[in-house]
Amino acid sequence: MTIRNVLFIMCDQLRWDYLAHAGHPHIRTPNLDRLAARGVRFSQAYIQSGICGPSRMSAYTGRYVSSHGATANRVPLSVGEVTLGWHLRHSGRALALAGKTHVLPDHHGMARLQLDGQHELAVLLREGWFELVDRWDGHHPEPDSAYAQWLRAQGYDSADPWTDYVIAVTDSDGSVKSGWQMRNARLPARVKEEHSETAYTTDRAIDFLARKGEEPWVLHLSYVKPHWPYIAPAPYHAMYGPEHCLPVSRHPAERGPGIHPLFREFQNEEVARNFQNDECIATVRPAYQGLITQVDDHLGRVWAAMETLGRWRDTLVIFTSDHGDYLGDHWLGEKELFHDVIQRVPFLLYDPSPEADATRGTEDRRFVELVDIVPTILDALGADPARHVVEGRSLLPLVRGEDPPWREAVFSELDFSYRGARRRLGLPAGHHHAWMVRTERWKYVHVGSGLRPMLFDLANDPEEFFDLGADPALAGVRAEMRERLLAWFQGLKRRTTVTFEEVERGTDSHKRAGIFYGVW
Amino acid sequence: MTIRNVLFIMCDQLRWDYLAHAGHPHIRTPNLDRLAARGVRFSQAYIQSGICGPSRMSAYTGRYVSSHGATANRVPLSVGEVTLGWHLRHSGRALALAGKTHVLPDHHGMARLQLDGQHELAVLLREGWFELVDRWDGHHPEPDSAYAQWLRAQGYDSADPWTDYVIAVTDSDGSVKSGWQMRNARLPARVKEEHSETAYTTDRAIDFLARKGEEPWVLHLSYVKPHWPYIAPAPYHAMYGPEHCLPVSRHPAERGPGIHPLFREFQNEEVARNFQNDECIATVRPAYQGLITQVDDHLGRVWAAMETLGRWRDTLVIFTSDHGDYLGDHWLGEKELFHDVIQRVPFLLYDPSPEADATRGTEDRRFVELVDIVPTILDALGADPARHVVEGRSLLPLVRGEDPPWREAVFSELDFSYRGARRRLGLPAGHHHAWMVRTERWKYVHVGSGLRPMLFDLANDPEEFFDLGADPALAGVRAEMRERLLAWFQGLKRRTTVTFEEVERGTDSHKRAGIFYGVW
Repeated sequence: MTIRNVLFIMCDQLRWDYLAHAGHPHIRTPNLDRLAARGVRFSQAYIQSGICGPSRMSAYTGRYVSSHGATANRVPLSVGEVTLGWHLRHSGRALALAGKTHVLPDHHGMARLQLDGQHELAVLLREGWFELVDRWDGHHPEPDSAYAQWLRAQGYDSADPWTDYVIAVTDSDGSVKSGWQMRNARLPARVKEEHSETAYTTDRAIDFLARKGEEPWVLHLSYVKPHWPYIAPAPYHAMYGPEHCLPVSRHPAERGPGIHPLFREFQNEEVARNFQNDECIATVRPAYQGLITQVDDHLGRVWAAMETLGRWRDTLVIFTSDHGDYLGDHWLGEKELFHDVIQRVPFLLYDPSPEADATRGTEDRRFVELVDIVPTILDALGADPARHVVEGRSLLPLVRGEDPPWREAVFSELDFSYRGARRRLGLPAGHHHAWMVRTERWKYVHVGSGLRPMLFDLANDPEEFFDLGADPALAGVRAEMRERLLAWFQGLKRRTTVTFEEVERGTDSHKRAGIFYGVW
Repeated sequence: MTIRNVLFIMCDQLRWDYLAHAGHPHIRTPNLDRLAARGVRFSQAYIQSGICGPSRMSAYTGRYVSSHGATANRVPLSVGEVTLGWHLRHSGRALALAGKTHVLPDHHGMARLQLDGQHELAVLLREGWFELVDRWDGHHPEPDSAYAQWLRAQGYDSADPWTDYVIAVTDSDGSVKSGWQMRNARLPARVKEEHSETAYTTDRAIDFLARKGEEPWVLHLSYVKPHWPYIAPAPYHAMYGPEHCLPVSRHPAERGPGIHPLFREFQNEEVARNFQNDECIATVRPAYQGLITQVDDHLGRVWAAMETLGRWRDTLVIFTSDHGDYLGDHWLGEKELFHDVIQRVPFLLYDPSPEADATRGTEDRRFVELVDIVPTILDALGADPARHVVEGRSLLPLVRGEDPPWREAVFSELDFSYRGARRRLGLPAGHHHAWMVRTERWKYVHVGSGLRPMLFDLANDPEEFFDLGADPALAGVRAEMRERLLAWFQGLKRRTTVTFEEVERGTDSHKRAGIFYGVW
């Protein structure tokens, strides 16, 4: 049966290793485990930047961050960039959204092109060509959002019910405390579970599937969890204890005087300093795990709706995350840097086609990147692959048992211009980026701004404790990794205004255009 | 006195060494020599791509080709890219055009953004934010152009007077021959000199200056000559003979079996094969020189108008070219590859300010690139420098006697996807680029598509005859040049939707935005 629908599910800040089928010894994720059994688990899936906005823009454009230019959370995607929503629209389809995107409007570009206002195009541009079932980004108060209004309709009497209920807790003395303070993660949210963000977004998605019936659709179901604030509703807040957590992955060698200045300054960010406290780790990790099991439970509702509607037979399902979470590993909190706990994410792909039957329930260790999502979706729907702009590759051949020549490395990058770390390093505002090349054996991080590179030997140091970026014996390895980086830069698709077919038609065609230069 | 106006003059396909003040022993360019005496001659000025469209888009955006993406003549600048015309408009100024730009409309981007139609914005976008005094690109028939209509009004009775008169000649037997055939370059154009492209474009510019009076202006005066078709009107067609030409710069070593495949296939293009014929060289070079002297004579008219209007006291003047012309050197015709006869161009800068008095008439050997034009103009006018997108640097400090840290290398690139050479190399349609890094000593060309690099030792081989790209003894030099290329790629400004000031304001500002992650 032909694929008619696509369900593209994303979690926010979900580590690759916090799923039962990925080996976590305590967490319960039965519904994601079922999806892994139905499809293929890509166990070496990597993101293009360790922070929401840039990572998502790569997932939504199929392009590396250096190509799409939305290098940091506060940087809008240029109005000149083309997204999945446009590609689908160009093929007569729409891209629906329930949940988070982190898309920002390109105010400068839209003003220059006189695309302000409330007409349909301006709205689509501000949303990156997503058509909203419901958007909920969930990382700052949005008291006018549909979710806030819905909460008020459910009886949460507040001008800002997210702040007052969703991420707030009631302490033992009856006082209301903010979930922004991580010490409160041990307490349940003041919102009922069925009114939580995860429940609300799932409701919107299930409503959408039911409403669509037999009409084809593409839905981005995008959970804001387990992203901070780390406040889980009951019973998830108490589902796990410190005894159910993975050991902290950190080493004294990462605190020495010779550590990389950028790493050092990230360790000096407030969030890192707090996660260097074992009590913080023991408080946050259980809540984080509870939020994951909550998402999994709600995915069980989605799976049931799919079953009822008969959608498992004609729907491609992708499940992934935009990046991980340090949670105290490497003496860090939050994300952004290049350790695998940030850069590696869950990636499940369910292809309903009979051609994919042979790979169901298998693990595929080939390197996957988030830029592969757009080409996979376009391929599944038979849409124009837009090869002149899309930099990822379709994964359908892989789940259908093919063995094409495949990538030997993955690439990620970071714009740390907005971080306090940048100022503490004495660097002026401007362009401050770092790039990661990761092969099976090595992870190389090329840091600009006059700083040395980092290097990790993943065969002998899988936890990435020992930075060999200054080891003279490994100059050759670093040079080889720089060659890979150079080749990657060269391969970026910067010519986006003509298609490959137009280039082929235009090749050596000057005489057909009435231009006869060079004739004797 | 403050600079109020800018006259940005460009020739098309004018080599750096075909000017009297640059050392050509025979050519007469007295008016450009006068401009060199009034201002500073940058004798090591380089372009960003050896072909009109990409080179000009770098001149008009201040960005390298890998950043602006208009990689070849048939590739439009993305609607998302920002040009000098927009920067000026943003500062309350307009950018007028008389002559050629090679700007193409981004049809795909404009359709996506519903920016078709005839409204002012659509017209500006199609013109890259130039406001037209008169546009004349002059490399293919445009029978509906203002120039064609004007020619008809002057009595040239033809549906296509450019083809029939401007680039046509009358042979000794009275038959009309096409200027597309280079053999006819020895004969005068059928158009009168005062109706030639160079005269016409000059008239439009002088009319514009007179019309503007004391109102400030920025004008791009952009000659299509001495670009092919190489047909000069009398008396310029016969002003020079083969005895007035530079010796041909080519060497048997460039024809050997070990030459680079890309170089070999460019030598197999029709234009190169014809320029391998000495008769072709002896026919074309004199006409090419005549066309240059004709431009120079008309610049004399511009200089006189400037004098009459009092504009030398308040006008910045830039004179340059978009690339050179092989004219048989290196067994090639036309352009595109990386020899200095293509990549190096004339560059004169006249700054009327008293601060620039000390440098008048001097030669400056520091490396200049065409990306420096936009920042120089913005600097001269006190406009927002748009440092977050502009990649070049203002040259005003240089002509005002300052000695800032300056670049050690220049960078150029080529997209050869559209060339027959690409097909003869067996390469599929797609992205096929090469990049040049040139320092004082070395020129390194990094060719993708599985081909080896090229390398020239400019100290010992200033004419670039001996390609050392495969010399094992120079692996270290090539590695060093690749490091420069990698650093250049890293420095490209891909984050274009936020200003540096916005980044500074946004740094470490999450709490001001109501986001309190990482608090214990």
